[in-house]
Amino acid sequence: MTITITAFERSPDGGKGLARDTRVRWALEEAGLAYEVRPVSFQALKEPAHLARHPFGQIPTYEEGDLVLFETGAIVLHIAEQHAGLLPTDAHARSRAITWMFAALSTMEPPILDLVTARILEGDKPWSQERLPLVMDRIRARLDQLSSHLGNSEWLDAAFSAGDLMMVSVLLRLRASGILDEYPKLSAYVARGEARPAYQRAFAAQLALNTSSS
Amino acid sequence: MTITITAFERSPDGGKGLARDTRVRWALEEAGLAYEVRPVSFQALKEPAHLARHPFGQIPTYEEGDLVLFETGAIVLHIAEQHAGLLPTDAHARSRAITWMFAALSTMEPPILDLVTARILEGDKPWSQERLPLVMDRIRARLDQLSSHLGNSEWLDAAFSAGDLMMVSVLLRLRASGILDEYPKLSAYVARGEARPAYQRAFAAQLALNTSSS
Repeated sequence: MTITITAFERSPDGGKGLARDTRVRWALEEAGLAYEVRPVSFQALKEPAHLARHPFGQIPTYEEGDLVLFETGAIVLHIAEQHAGLLPTDAHARSRAITWMFAALSTMEPPILDLVTARILEGDKPWSQERLPLVMDRIRARLDQLSSHLGNSEWLDAAFSAGDLMMVSVLLRLRASGILDEYPKLSAYVARGEARPAYQRAFAAQLALNTSSS
Repeated sequence: MTITITAFERSPDGGKGLARDTRVRWALEEAGLAYEVRPVSFQALKEPAHLARHPFGQIPTYEEGDLVLFETGAIVLHIAEQHAGLLPTDAHARSRAITWMFAALSTMEPPILDLVTARILEGDKPWSQERLPLVMDRIRARLDQLSSHLGNSEWLDAAFSAGDLMMVSVLLRLRASGILDEYPKLSAYVARGEARPAYQRAFAAQLALNTSSS
């Protein structure tokens, strides 16, 4: 059955791989699944046809026959449940891998996204410069804990899983800020994620869409 | 097998049910499962014994034999996967219910938690009052979309699920702010969640812990 995902017609990051379709592409590549991409313009995101698929007017969405899903975490989990390669078969290890998916999205990503709020959405406000160090310190508090947990391990819980896919994707948002360089273990962890052939293919595919001339 | 969760020895909200153990208690009650509670002091949250269970030093955690989980979303999903009452049996409806769990935690909750940042963490900053309306408007943008999706439906996707449990729990954080009163359909939705006997039992249990004299 054909899998179709949506992506920005032109990503705000110009193809750096930070738009969330990259996470879904990565999961599909790890699972060895072919997929089609429907690019969506910023205008079309707010129109009824797209809102019927995604009530919050965002990308990505996932269509597979009659099934329509949104939320990157839910899409990646759906792929991981249906195909090998993203979740361990042992029941306890599987629940721990899912725990790390939620940890990436619920615990790590919100303070990291606050950097976008501080720098871009509120970048023209009088408090912007003074507020930034507070935001950075809240991110560092989480990175300290994550780095302590990871230690010298290769992945968060024994073998690579959808939990690592999500955590690496979230941490990649920090690269431009330089904060990640303060954490050598986490930097090496992110690099291990990026080195996976499935990530490389996902990254190349989103870059091609964002640099095409059509 | 005995299920043990952790909760604050004294919740910062004094028993209003906003600490995340209430969400896990609610899921356990919907599934008809007995559980034990290990109260954890603020000091103990940062100590090695607790950090071994929860790398980010928070509550709740979940223990069931050898299995130790953290992250409310992962714990609720684990309970929902193992027991009837929280996820539909139809595969597509099940994936949609999980989508709403992620939507509650990844899309709705971050702007709502920013209200805590603005009012409490940064409540003494010179920008606090001027920034608050921006935070409120970002919350309203999400509530507008959620209310449009819900319409006059009873639950987010046909029948009550773990997705509603999580969404109602996230929206309850807004009650004290008064914003929820601007959305009659969402207010009624939250009230339907609170009216469930399982929620009532979960709320009463967390209140009893927070008002006990021991």
